[in-house]
Amino acid sequence: MDEIISTTRGTSTQDGRVMSVVEAALTLFSEYGFRGTTMEELASAVGIKAPSLYNYIESKYKLLFNIIKGTADRALLELATARDSSSDVVDQLRQITMTHIRYHVRHRREAFIGNRELASLTGEDRAIITCLRDQYEGIIRAVIKSGLDQGRFNVASPQLASYAILEMGVGVATWFRSDGPVSEAEVSKQYGEFALRIVQAK
Amino acid sequence: MDEIISTTRGTSTQDGRVMSVVEAALTLFSEYGFRGTTMEELASAVGIKAPSLYNYIESKYKLLFNIIKGTADRALLELATARDSSSDVVDQLRQITMTHIRYHVRHRREAFIGNRELASLTGEDRAIITCLRDQYEGIIRAVIKSGLDQGRFNVASPQLASYAILEMGVGVATWFRSDGPVSEAEVSKQYGEFALRIVQAK
Repeated sequence: MDEIISTTRGTSTQDGRVMSVVEAALTLFSEYGFRGTTMEELASAVGIKAPSLYNYIESKYKLLFNIIKGTADRALLELATARDSSSDVVDQLRQITMTHIRYHVRHRREAFIGNRELASLTGEDRAIITCLRDQYEGIIRAVIKSGLDQGRFNVASPQLASYAILEMGVGVATWFRSDGPVSEAEVSKQYGEFALRIVQAK
Repeated sequence: MDEIISTTRGTSTQDGRVMSVVEAALTLFSEYGFRGTTMEELASAVGIKAPSLYNYIESKYKLLFNIIKGTADRALLELATARDSSSDVVDQLRQITMTHIRYHVRHRREAFIGNRELASLTGEDRAIITCLRDQYEGIIRAVIKSGLDQGRFNVASPQLASYAILEMGVGVATWFRSDGPVSEAEVSKQYGEFALRIVQAK
């Protein structure tokens, strides 16, 4: 969000309006898709006329890119922080999985948009996001490899194990409801346990 | 696909054209989204004019629904068949997971569209698809519950374990490449193993 705001010359009223535009975009993009959302619909959702949108954003495309990049940056930072919270590899894998799950529970629309609109980005922008995602996956894979080196984990392919753990979390964003029967704490705890089981941690 | 074709009065040439329209829709809907794809683009992709599309499909919406329903029907049938291929619960979980993975490897666009366009369906149609998906997830969960009853599995929540297994497979559709370094056989075998580990099968 900071990233997005910094691209405008902000007074606090303007910052508030930018936040509203981002909020509306998260809802509309996740519901109708980037290409399926018009500037008119975006403007209407924040109660302004379409041309006024350009006071707050550079373009619909740039708004999409900033949402995806901001989301990827933050997720990567949180994952690295979780990894650094422990020097024990079993604990690290549990912590990064729980952080991954929590992130997807708390940022469901962002996760959904990031996953489905990668193809809407231009080559260069897509390369930036792909690089951030590779770093994110790389953290999980490196922890699994450390565990294998230390004889604490047993898994044939650290890559497939890392993908499986990533995907479990991405999927949570599609079904989790904050008013549902399973709490954020419970789902992150259980999935943390699943990750350890996948690599047969000991 | 049979489902989609049966809605037209088909000569074999017409059937072929319907197949082309479905094929183009799979590519365009998965790339640009349902709402982001126009009838003109769909017609252009098969080399006809937009009004002629109505000789082959009832509407863009009906095409989307038939694609999603056809995909869900087939996936459900394959999963039930895999479950019925064995009476041993460990083997059943391995087989249904491998089938789930293979389905997502072989029908990547269909899986992508089915997952992201559920919100594009009307209430009644969405209820039909949700019901099919619940049955699909129910097969996995029932096998896990059987394993628990028989003392062969050990997992706190059959629901979360079933979701985790489902999601691992859905994710495969996003990264798998038939010309990539990991084969369909290898990924389905490894993920089958992950499923058994998640429930601590013995």
